[in-house]
Amino acid sequence: MIRATRGDLVESTHRGHAVVMDAGGIAMAWGDPDAVIYPRSSCKMLQALPLIEAGVDLPSERMALACASHQGAALHVEGVRHWLADMGLGEDDLMCGPEPSRDTDLRHAMIRAHEAPGQVHNNCSGKHAGFLALTRHLGAGPAYVDPDHPVQKAVRAAFEEVTGEDSPGFGFDGCSAPNFATTTTGLARAMQRFASAGQGGGGRDGAMAALRDAMIAHPMLVAGEGRACTELMAACTTPAAIKTGAEGVFVAILPERGMGVALKIADGATRASEAAIAAILVHLGALDPEHPAARRRLGVPIVNRAGLEVGRIEAMAGFPA
Amino acid sequence: MIRATRGDLVESTHRGHAVVMDAGGIAMAWGDPDAVIYPRSSCKMLQALPLIEAGVDLPSERMALACASHQGAALHVEGVRHWLADMGLGEDDLMCGPEPSRDTDLRHAMIRAHEAPGQVHNNCSGKHAGFLALTRHLGAGPAYVDPDHPVQKAVRAAFEEVTGEDSPGFGFDGCSAPNFATTTTGLARAMQRFASAGQGGGGRDGAMAALRDAMIAHPMLVAGEGRACTELMAACTTPAAIKTGAEGVFVAILPERGMGVALKIADGATRASEAAIAAILVHLGALDPEHPAARRRLGVPIVNRAGLEVGRIEAMAGFPA
Repeated sequence: MIRATRGDLVESTHRGHAVVMDAGGIAMAWGDPDAVIYPRSSCKMLQALPLIEAGVDLPSERMALACASHQGAALHVEGVRHWLADMGLGEDDLMCGPEPSRDTDLRHAMIRAHEAPGQVHNNCSGKHAGFLALTRHLGAGPAYVDPDHPVQKAVRAAFEEVTGEDSPGFGFDGCSAPNFATTTTGLARAMQRFASAGQGGGGRDGAMAALRDAMIAHPMLVAGEGRACTELMAACTTPAAIKTGAEGVFVAILPERGMGVALKIADGATRASEAAIAAILVHLGALDPEHPAARRRLGVPIVNRAGLEVGRIEAMAGFPA
Repeated sequence: MIRATRGDLVESTHRGHAVVMDAGGIAMAWGDPDAVIYPRSSCKMLQALPLIEAGVDLPSERMALACASHQGAALHVEGVRHWLADMGLGEDDLMCGPEPSRDTDLRHAMIRAHEAPGQVHNNCSGKHAGFLALTRHLGAGPAYVDPDHPVQKAVRAAFEEVTGEDSPGFGFDGCSAPNFATTTTGLARAMQRFASAGQGGGGRDGAMAALRDAMIAHPMLVAGEGRACTELMAACTTPAAIKTGAEGVFVAILPERGMGVALKIADGATRASEAAIAAILVHLGALDPEHPAARRRLGVPIVNRAGLEVGRIEAMAGFPA
């Protein structure tokens, strides 16, 4: 799908699988649509679904944080802290583990203050606050990342229903939550269902629309400054909820087109998944290839430490068109 | 060659090319031995060859620094600073560009002191000090990374002679020096020549043996604490010079076996190149698979932010045996 060039030669190549799903089924596919993948953080809107379906009332900012892989900037950290405080909980109730903030200014400020990274800085802390909110609503025990905990059982049921497939298994994610596997097609099918869910409805349909629209309304909460998810959502010419997952996964939800997109880079490289989702969005007419957010991911010069352009990240011949 | 598992499933896979060369030619090969690759930093001993062949007298520590992708710890930074000072030069004469130190303590100390990363912290600063030493010896101009500069012309000539192939082209490396392409076989052939070069001889043979032996004598200077090159060199049961290159390249020089190894992971992933070189060294009987340095690269648990084991980096069935 994607290659890195240097000088006049190709230096590295990335293979992958991708599916574009519309109301009629698979509209386009590359690689192996049946490849089993871990969605990782790309399915956070699925992991938040039982919380909203249960009727827990949340402002859209908190819905966006529940779906976020944020970079732990002040905006995100304070949002999660206030959410936890409103529930009478604290950082120690999270089970995601500590992670250094990815916001350079905050990270450097913490190093200068000899402050250790906290669990609220973990890019998944919003998802975990959502798990805690559902735990509280259900009156369940504190070990909410256990696959047998009511929260994770509800997540698995929603995941299998919306992907339309029985999950062949799960692994534990970087944040210790179970991450359920599905095919690339299953993940695209789930995103298409988010795309076609009607606003204002009750139950699952309304919950899916609410989460999707919260992501679209708050791109800075879903990732952060300079990040691909945030920049691509802002750049698209049609409303779009766009989300990355570790190990080379990306999804997009395009409600006005009724389309869902899912892709996985086989080797797990983020530079390639960012380029591939940009290429597909351009191919679908949802993104101007000359927009800076697109140019920074696709056809982008590789600049070395002295500021010299030494190569490019670009789509390989035949992908996506 | 290498895969990353999570739970009971394979999450990501890495393909690659590798060649083991002995005095008789190609002894073993995987993938495409004719694949054209950029060696990147794996060929620093080739880039230092004209300097030593020219008769510039250097202690073995400086030879090791010239071959190093060091992590910019105090040991490396001070070594390069003293070398520059002994030539009457300073950090501003380097052309590698600034890079934050990869040594956590030093990097954090510099952040606390509001000190910007310097060119001496760049992992290639020893190579560049070597280029400056040859520039001075030749009485050439200061723009030593220009492909038409006498230093780079000498590097290209040595590179093509020792790989036994005309280079099909070059790209500029992260440090702005030209990096000449060759086949995986060409790079393995060069490493085999380093392996079989006799000590104490003059000219190219003596220069190759001196650089190889400097790397073997100073594994901490070649990379640094916790780094794969350093740990694998120390762990091997036979003397070995081992060197990584960006975008998934690794080489090994095994003088007592008269063997050279070169490998390239097609997608450029370092986690896979480290696992693959460990797997080949184990396969050659040069590394105990139970040694901690091997275990940290191959069959190693992936540990998440909460300290939980969630998967493994391991060799795929059929590789290398």
